[in-house]
Amino acid sequence: MIIMNRKNIAILGSTGSIGTQTLEIIRNKKQFKITALAAGKNIELLESQIREFNPDLVCVYNEDKAIELKYRVKDLDVKVLSGMDGLIEVAIYQKTDILLTAMVGMIGIRPTIEAIKAGKDIALANKETLVTAGHIIMPLIKEMNVNILPVDSEHSAIFQSLNGEDSKTIKKIILTASGGPFHGKKLSDLKNIKPKDALKHPNWEMGQKITIDSSTMVNKGLEVMEAKWLFDIDIDKIDVIIHPQSIIHSMVEYNDGSVIAQLGVPDMKLPIQYALLYPMREELVEGESLELTKIKDLTFEEPDYDTFYGLGLGYEAGRLGGTMPTVYNAANEWAVAKFLEGKIDYLMITQLIKESMKEHRIIDNPSLNTILNTEKETYDFLNNIIKI
Amino acid sequence: MIIMNRKNIAILGSTGSIGTQTLEIIRNKKQFKITALAAGKNIELLESQIREFNPDLVCVYNEDKAIELKYRVKDLDVKVLSGMDGLIEVAIYQKTDILLTAMVGMIGIRPTIEAIKAGKDIALANKETLVTAGHIIMPLIKEMNVNILPVDSEHSAIFQSLNGEDSKTIKKIILTASGGPFHGKKLSDLKNIKPKDALKHPNWEMGQKITIDSSTMVNKGLEVMEAKWLFDIDIDKIDVIIHPQSIIHSMVEYNDGSVIAQLGVPDMKLPIQYALLYPMREELVEGESLELTKIKDLTFEEPDYDTFYGLGLGYEAGRLGGTMPTVYNAANEWAVAKFLEGKIDYLMITQLIKESMKEHRIIDNPSLNTILNTEKETYDFLNNIIKI
Repeated sequence: MIIMNRKNIAILGSTGSIGTQTLEIIRNKKQFKITALAAGKNIELLESQIREFNPDLVCVYNEDKAIELKYRVKDLDVKVLSGMDGLIEVAIYQKTDILLTAMVGMIGIRPTIEAIKAGKDIALANKETLVTAGHIIMPLIKEMNVNILPVDSEHSAIFQSLNGEDSKTIKKIILTASGGPFHGKKLSDLKNIKPKDALKHPNWEMGQKITIDSSTMVNKGLEVMEAKWLFDIDIDKIDVIIHPQSIIHSMVEYNDGSVIAQLGVPDMKLPIQYALLYPMREELVEGESLELTKIKDLTFEEPDYDTFYGLGLGYEAGRLGGTMPTVYNAANEWAVAKFLEGKIDYLMITQLIKESMKEHRIIDNPSLNTILNTEKETYDFLNNIIKI
Repeated sequence: MIIMNRKNIAILGSTGSIGTQTLEIIRNKKQFKITALAAGKNIELLESQIREFNPDLVCVYNEDKAIELKYRVKDLDVKVLSGMDGLIEVAIYQKTDILLTAMVGMIGIRPTIEAIKAGKDIALANKETLVTAGHIIMPLIKEMNVNILPVDSEHSAIFQSLNGEDSKTIKKIILTASGGPFHGKKLSDLKNIKPKDALKHPNWEMGQKITIDSSTMVNKGLEVMEAKWLFDIDIDKIDVIIHPQSIIHSMVEYNDGSVIAQLGVPDMKLPIQYALLYPMREELVEGESLELTKIKDLTFEEPDYDTFYGLGLGYEAGRLGGTMPTVYNAANEWAVAKFLEGKIDYLMITQLIKESMKEHRIIDNPSLNTILNTEKETYDFLNNIIKI
């Protein structure tokens, strides 16, 4: 393992929750240099990031916003790009060592594939990439001999718990789940849930989409599929347990019965920094120490698969494979957006995933085009059955 | 790291709790061969071990018992030795790759030193070795470039949690303690404790001496000192927390705030097997899987340093160093033996450690002779003040 003195980092999704926390870390670490940034449309924040971190290259996915940004930063020596071509140019920028992929949705997949082909290490904070295209990404990672470093707290916990161990000796991966804001509720309690209720996560500060996904446990369904690819393990060897305190971030059980776990106060900066510094560790600026004697109690329960049946659907999609995980993800993405706009009821989110999966005919081993097409077909199906 | 297909194992203390559990593991593992065994005086059990495992060499520390055993196994091709010379011959036997040191007390130190000098890896299940002679053992381990593999569940947990990590990044080692059978009690509750009360450990099946030590938390004091040597860490970076369920066996906190822990059902066979197989893992025969959703609750508290002040004395002895840890250990050994014989009260155990430490004038960097002399002086002191 070569430890580089300086790491050049590019970020896809620099204005989101993970992106901004990543930049907070980099602000305090002299060994990092930001080479390129990409965002969807928040050019106000992107402009201030450019002024602070001096990337060579930025991309705004929205073309009009890109033109506006270009004008705003015309005093600076920075190249401003737009659209998918711009994202890809950011992803493969030759000065970059490690690309952090933190854009929400399927938009990040193509740039991620191109970055791997260009030999970049990937710090992965985009779930859709492995959920929908794990069968494309993982062989490519191996072929190009690059590292894929999970940023999700659960997958980072597993990655840390696996440190140095032979993966053949894994008996089980145990993903912990907080249970979200509706832990303990039954379906009948969830009828009139409004976006503001679902956006109150008990432990983690995260983006809106992932907070809703956490409340339905669809987030955990996606994580199960992601773990399957990331750690090359049969999906039925991945367990989910509810652990409301979110202190144990996940665990690995080995064949001898020994369980290695990673614990910490819930703070996304820890897994982000671990991914960027791996295999080193450094002090986390403003990080908190875990004080188990103050927390006093860690509790564990089986998930309620009846109320949160989106989790079971995730296992089903993962077992079926092919294009089914894309349907699961796309239907959820569509439904969460409509729920946040106040256009569908909370319970419809999981219901629509179920309907979409029932409707779908699986295509095995899909190409990226087939995956993107499946996403579109799922949206069309939902737009057809739900007239808003 | 060279992985050997076959490991030749010798055991000092084969008839004790750790010794017999080790042989249960080896019974099921074809890659292990027992080369030599040593026991104190239980020749009935030793004979049956000889008949099952066919060692080339055995030692019975007690000379009369050795003669008796020699007669009993005269039909077999096994060399029977006795006394300290015999223990050393077992320890350095040339066919051995790894020596498990599981004799209780200071008797194991000299054979351990000789084994290291002879290039053997050490599976360490004898606390006194590092507590009293860590300053001799650890440099020798380094010089001879052999492995020292902890068998204690707590130290094995730390060893497993450190797997592959840079020890410079350790912020803290967190030793868990069950609290023993008297957890929650105050000094006044412990006045009339009888051996049978103190021998009821809530979670672990262990030998008598260690079970009493666990009830007074002197065991944890010894473990703190052992961890200091084993992991080359300042004693004030070692925390003890009470965790009555004994599921988290210990933890390491890194400088980024990440905590890695090893968990499992309380079963000494797990750390024993890990030490013997390291760095590999294999299924543990008759091992149980950890089911956190059945256990439901893991709790944590600060130790009660007033009631269990033997723990604080352990820290003090470890900080003072030199011959003081030997005094701590010897006074405890003497007092526990007298308590088990019904000759002193339970509360006298810790009280006598305190008195012995107060009386002692520290000799820094003691030789093995000085250590053994200090043990003898401590016994003499106690025999003088307690007339039984």
